[in-house]
Amino acid sequence: MDILFSSDIAPLAGVLALVWALVVLTKGLKHDEGTEEMKKIAHQVQQGAMAFLRTEYRILSVFVAIVFVVLYMSGLEGLGPNTAYAFLAGACASALAGWIGMFTATRAAVRTTHAAQTSLQKALQISFASGTVMGLTVVGLGVLGVAMFTTLYGPSGLQNVLGFSFGASSIALFARVGGGIFTKAADVGADLVGKVEAGIPEDDPRNPAVIADNVGDNVGDVAGMGADLFESYVGSIIATMILGVSIQGVGAEGAVPTLVALPLIVAGLGIIASLVGTFFVRTNDEHKLHTALFSGLVVASLVLVGLVWVAVDRMGDTLAFTMNGHAVTSMGIFKAIIVGLVSGVLIGKATEYYTSEKKGPAQGIAAQSETGAATNLIHGLATGMASVGLPVIFICIAIWMANDAANIYGIAIAAVGMLSTLGISLGVDAYGPVADNAGGVAEMAGLDPVVRQRTDALDACGNTTAAIGKGFAIGSAALTALALFAAFKQTAGLEAIDVTKAKVTIGLFLGGMLPFLFSAMTMRAVGRAATAMIEEVRRQFREIPGLLEGKADPDPEACVAIATKGSIGEMVVPGLLAILAPVAVGKFIGVEALGALLAGALTTGVMMAIFMANAGGAWDNAKKYIEGGAHGGKGSDAHKAAVVGDTVGDPFKDTSGPSLNILIKLMSIVALIFLPWFLN
Amino acid sequence: MDILFSSDIAPLAGVLALVWALVVLTKGLKHDEGTEEMKKIAHQVQQGAMAFLRTEYRILSVFVAIVFVVLYMSGLEGLGPNTAYAFLAGACASALAGWIGMFTATRAAVRTTHAAQTSLQKALQISFASGTVMGLTVVGLGVLGVAMFTTLYGPSGLQNVLGFSFGASSIALFARVGGGIFTKAADVGADLVGKVEAGIPEDDPRNPAVIADNVGDNVGDVAGMGADLFESYVGSIIATMILGVSIQGVGAEGAVPTLVALPLIVAGLGIIASLVGTFFVRTNDEHKLHTALFSGLVVASLVLVGLVWVAVDRMGDTLAFTMNGHAVTSMGIFKAIIVGLVSGVLIGKATEYYTSEKKGPAQGIAAQSETGAATNLIHGLATGMASVGLPVIFICIAIWMANDAANIYGIAIAAVGMLSTLGISLGVDAYGPVADNAGGVAEMAGLDPVVRQRTDALDACGNTTAAIGKGFAIGSAALTALALFAAFKQTAGLEAIDVTKAKVTIGLFLGGMLPFLFSAMTMRAVGRAATAMIEEVRRQFREIPGLLEGKADPDPEACVAIATKGSIGEMVVPGLLAILAPVAVGKFIGVEALGALLAGALTTGVMMAIFMANAGGAWDNAKKYIEGGAHGGKGSDAHKAAVVGDTVGDPFKDTSGPSLNILIKLMSIVALIFLPWFLN
Repeated sequence: MDILFSSDIAPLAGVLALVWALVVLTKGLKHDEGTEEMKKIAHQVQQGAMAFLRTEYRILSVFVAIVFVVLYMSGLEGLGPNTAYAFLAGACASALAGWIGMFTATRAAVRTTHAAQTSLQKALQISFASGTVMGLTVVGLGVLGVAMFTTLYGPSGLQNVLGFSFGASSIALFARVGGGIFTKAADVGADLVGKVEAGIPEDDPRNPAVIADNVGDNVGDVAGMGADLFESYVGSIIATMILGVSIQGVGAEGAVPTLVALPLIVAGLGIIASLVGTFFVRTNDEHKLHTALFSGLVVASLVLVGLVWVAVDRMGDTLAFTMNGHAVTSMGIFKAIIVGLVSGVLIGKATEYYTSEKKGPAQGIAAQSETGAATNLIHGLATGMASVGLPVIFICIAIWMANDAANIYGIAIAAVGMLSTLGISLGVDAYGPVADNAGGVAEMAGLDPVVRQRTDALDACGNTTAAIGKGFAIGSAALTALALFAAFKQTAGLEAIDVTKAKVTIGLFLGGMLPFLFSAMTMRAVGRAATAMIEEVRRQFREIPGLLEGKADPDPEACVAIATKGSIGEMVVPGLLAILAPVAVGKFIGVEALGALLAGALTTGVMMAIFMANAGGAWDNAKKYIEGGAHGGKGSDAHKAAVVGDTVGDPFKDTSGPSLNILIKLMSIVALIFLPWFLN
Repeated sequence: MDILFSSDIAPLAGVLALVWALVVLTKGLKHDEGTEEMKKIAHQVQQGAMAFLRTEYRILSVFVAIVFVVLYMSGLEGLGPNTAYAFLAGACASALAGWIGMFTATRAAVRTTHAAQTSLQKALQISFASGTVMGLTVVGLGVLGVAMFTTLYGPSGLQNVLGFSFGASSIALFARVGGGIFTKAADVGADLVGKVEAGIPEDDPRNPAVIADNVGDNVGDVAGMGADLFESYVGSIIATMILGVSIQGVGAEGAVPTLVALPLIVAGLGIIASLVGTFFVRTNDEHKLHTALFSGLVVASLVLVGLVWVAVDRMGDTLAFTMNGHAVTSMGIFKAIIVGLVSGVLIGKATEYYTSEKKGPAQGIAAQSETGAATNLIHGLATGMASVGLPVIFICIAIWMANDAANIYGIAIAAVGMLSTLGISLGVDAYGPVADNAGGVAEMAGLDPVVRQRTDALDACGNTTAAIGKGFAIGSAALTALALFAAFKQTAGLEAIDVTKAKVTIGLFLGGMLPFLFSAMTMRAVGRAATAMIEEVRRQFREIPGLLEGKADPDPEACVAIATKGSIGEMVVPGLLAILAPVAVGKFIGVEALGALLAGALTTGVMMAIFMANAGGAWDNAKKYIEGGAHGGKGSDAHKAAVVGDTVGDPFKDTSGPSLNILIKLMSIVALIFLPWFLN
């Protein structure tokens, strides 16, 4: 029992998570892949996904190598070789998690399709197991990496451990931005030329871009989402530990070791809770899919609450400290963790409300589609803007309560609490694209309609969990960035970040501007990559004789290559902007202005991320609502208008919006990691 | 000469401006109105405009009365009867300026049309004279009001003088929001039913909404813009005076009287400079229209620089003070004024670049229209987001330089400098809708095409100046809000507004959220008001026999009444939000959190205002560029796609975007005015 509630739980639970992921993966791979036709399709998607990753990782390795050398050679206290090694490990861990997630997801899809020929229960098990592999890999690698470097460098070397988070962030940036561009370029290419111009159905094997589209779902929703949350996960843990150390000197010294250990303990317990939760996800009734998935999350959360209660209770007074004249008790810290856990769910639910086709906002957009594309768009934009309200209020309440319970440390540990059950919540999230791809395989292989019906049920439920997951990703990014922001202030030794000073106001404005510039860049990048894709698909239909008649095979590799090339090339400039902006401000305007830059970017970044994600989700579901028969159904004028809204929403919700999550975290980490240089 | 450079110049120049405005108006009204048909049309627009104002002012008078009583009864130092009287005067002055502006503009349009039958030069003179009346009325009433209350209440009563600014803000809010909703509801109603459904040309007299559309141009671009800039004008002057007083105790006491007097002196000299500038606006060559208008502005700016130089030089060391350890000289203050003047022009020029049909951004959107509405929209949104960059960088440079030259006082006096030539710059701006309406009259009265050609030349130039004016309005709102923010911090006696405190972070987030909520509300309001309008126009075409054949007259009053009712009803909730949010945060979370609320709203408000205004402007001009023959010209698929973008852009650029200017200023003023209550 003692091990369970000591910081040793973290590496042990991390190893357990990885072993369990391997077990689940091995078991999953034993399932049958079905017919030769299915195998061939699956193989193409697998090849495409790996081709994308290879190209992406090749570029990233150059970037990682340069940053490694810069960090290694810096020769400043708090930077140097130790940070460089942690950076390298963080980048490799995130890349590895992405690779495993993609490997698993692309193999699980075809097996899900095959299982769906037998029963929904089996199909759910396989697709959810694939998500579980991703979730457990992320938390396992994350917790193991942080625990290892914390042990190696000691509490005084946490500034170096931050390198691990920086490495994870860098990969996340490129995965989210690059993946987001890939997925939308492929999607637009497949839809616009295939469905609209050539008039063939969705997922038709004659369409050369269909494989790229399926690859894109994995690239964006599996690797991108995984890297995003991996970053939040390790970032929040390390930031909280740094805050724990900084309490030295301002509070009771005795509390420091436990305060530093606590985030790792919570993370370790969260892995165990998540493992328990995964066993509660099972159903054979397609109307109870959502309940099945949700019950897994609820069980995991309850188990976590119980375990954390015992842990905090055992530590008792060793957690008590005084900060900013505020006496914090172990119970206060427990409350802050619960605040994080609950607010993550609430923010996710708010997102679901604003985007679900069963709720007012999306249906309102559908109704406005009757008067054309313009009113659909105005209403969608307004809905996205209005949807900023609730999540921001939830975040504010969480800040208030966590701060009230355990001061600044409370805000940081709330972020850890929110992410503690990531093992299962990411699993729920990452099963969506598997179900989506499974449907694609069923369509391309021409299977019995009942198979598609079952995979569609899985997919529909996956869309809901994806919406919740998107809200959760934004909420956790906001809290993680706040934790990093607090760590930044403490580490920089700033008395205050006073926005009434002119330089600080400038920092706030520049920071507030960056999410707009960044979004503009990523949206335009999608446009350019999609144009290249459209031209390639048109070329194939024109130059490959008999393709449209089904007498010849398309060349899907060419499409994958073009989307890969476009997306990888386009991610460089926004990536550099995110890294160089805080460095330039920190060095040339000052550390306090840099703090304001982070605050400004966090403020507009969170708003824009919610606005774009929810507007995009609402447009998507407004279209689906019409396709379900409302306002004239498929093919009606309202539907045509809704398709325009959906297309505009695609880069909003899958590229620019999610990329902002990374932007706000990465900028905070860059600010924190290069702090010794700015202060020098 | 002594009077010219003392604070007596302000009321004297104010009276001079009003007298001159009366002279120009009287002279203008003597011009011929043309045929009976023209008179009838003009009469309908005049009636509609006045009907709107009457209804708006009736609602406003209730609001003003309530606030008057609340202020009067408050019984707190710094509030009370003195603030209440100033509030009443500010509200009445703004309302009066709006009424005079509308009165003049609606009478000038038909006379411009008639003059265009003779020569372009005469048409320009009449339309520009009308703008001049508006510009001079705004600065005259503004400077006179501030000077009067400053004299009555004395330097220690500046907190009460702020009531004048609050009154102006309240009117501005309702004028911008209500006017913005009216103009777009009428525009959409006229276009959608008239042009699209009934297939009749723009400005066709058979269209019942055409009169409302023409009324709307005045309501939005004359009264709305005028009230917006009136607010900036008086707000920046009073904020700078308050800062001047606050230097007492922190700097050289001797400087206080001159520092308090200086903003009024600069404003007074600006009026004289503007008057001189108006005499340089003349041309008969339609290619030199822009140069003619611009040369008036340049002359006014040069005269101002000379006059301010002499004024500051004469005051010399009496302006010198030390603030935050920073020694400020009279030369530093002069520099800050110039920084404001120049940055206003630069921000305007940046807006012009991003929206002009002759430049890359709008042409890029036009090119993307070839692949449909979705790509047009994605590109337009991205362009709007990207366009945030330059103006924000200009604002940051202005803050930096003004602060470097004269500390916080420098930032405030830079805002005064930017607005000092408002007499002519608003004149240039307000001539646009007159030219637009003149074209409408020519069309409806069926005049010779050469007349329409001349008014179109005036209108095209008016669109450019309007784009610059919009950028100028945002830039001046940002600087004014910064000046008010600085005054808020000084008056509240806050050491700092430290965004690392949890409560303050919450304030920042809530403030950042408000512009999104506010924009969502105003956009939806346009949708609802437009729907009511569309139904009314459809009803008239259906129920009035012979209307489409031109055998019967439409009922334009009904359309005006519906747009009025819709817009006035819709402005209440956003208006209350803007006033109640700072009051609630100030009272229940605290004054420092309120400061952060202002900083957050200022940050996202400025970004969103620029984003929406420029996206809307770029969409508009992308459509015009295609109509000019590019990408297949009018009627092509690209044109249809561009029309969708233009329609989405309408509420962006004419309702939600400009309303944010008011939001950020009004919230600052509310925070400042109720400060005694929060601190109590």
